[in-house]
Amino acid sequence: MHNRKTIALDMDGVLANNLDHYLNYYHQETGIQLTDADVLGLPEGECVPDKTAVRRYIGSEGFFRTLPVAKDAQEVVKELHDRYDVFVVSAAMEFPWSLREKRDWLAEYFPFISWHNIVFCGHKHIIHTDYLIDDHVKNLLTFKGKGLMFNSFHNINEHRFERLQDWKDVHRYFQG
Amino acid sequence: MHNRKTIALDMDGVLANNLDHYLNYYHQETGIQLTDADVLGLPEGECVPDKTAVRRYIGSEGFFRTLPVAKDAQEVVKELHDRYDVFVVSAAMEFPWSLREKRDWLAEYFPFISWHNIVFCGHKHIIHTDYLIDDHVKNLLTFKGKGLMFNSFHNINEHRFERLQDWKDVHRYFQG
Repeated sequence: MHNRKTIALDMDGVLANNLDHYLNYYHQETGIQLTDADVLGLPEGECVPDKTAVRRYIGSEGFFRTLPVAKDAQEVVKELHDRYDVFVVSAAMEFPWSLREKRDWLAEYFPFISWHNIVFCGHKHIIHTDYLIDDHVKNLLTFKGKGLMFNSFHNINEHRFERLQDWKDVHRYFQG
Repeated sequence: MHNRKTIALDMDGVLANNLDHYLNYYHQETGIQLTDADVLGLPEGECVPDKTAVRRYIGSEGFFRTLPVAKDAQEVVKELHDRYDVFVVSAAMEFPWSLREKRDWLAEYFPFISWHNIVFCGHKHIIHTDYLIDDHVKNLLTFKGKGLMFNSFHNINEHRFERLQDWKDVHRYFQG
């Protein structure tokens, strides 16, 4: 098993579609339906007009348990899992209740990923795998292996890492 | 900060005194008070006469939240924290409720360790720090840095790693 290459996958914004969740929460709260175009290029924490809102949403119980799964993520991760050691590496430590929510979310959407291969942490710089797919440049910058930037509204102006547009693009990358 | 060396500390059997907790649970259940001498050299999961007991204790809610802290651990970890980047790396993923219990336990006994420096995982082989202090040889065998075996009743016959007898001995090791 340790001859297989290792891939670490971020959760928020990679396995999960956080943006849709932010916009849905904002719509519930204000009645205003923002679109992907409205938020393009904005920082993640300030993607809606109320700059305190995203922080409030992620700090509320239930947010992480009810995240929508990213399009095509389940199928592509299942494929990767057949050929690589796939780890989920998520910053979950800030909000203690999110630990259980994230664990249960993964059990629902990615039941084939063993608990042995789940890592909840703060800093990711002590995680060492061959690949890391993450939407935040700060995590890629301290990573020792091959860092791959998962496309997100908040990282479109960042060009220091190879970009994967979506899960179909992840499939293409690892197929080659 | 990244110029400082990194130390990963295991929780169960290292920061926490799991053996005392097993023996207390067993005493509560049976009225029988076993001593350290009774369990010396036995496998951790089979250290009391009822071979199913330890598994049952660690699988019960509240076990991890109520663990006694290891003797001298708080003082020595505080010292290490002043000179190293100290991480807590604990296998907490098998039992979903233990995530919150371990997080709250650390906040109580080691409040100076930031959530940024806490890692809950399954396998530890993707954790890369300069040092790892752990009581289980399986974690030390896959570790790339300097592995240090923390003395425990269940590992006394294991001689492949430098052994630290207790937290005073950890202090001595890193003082030098």
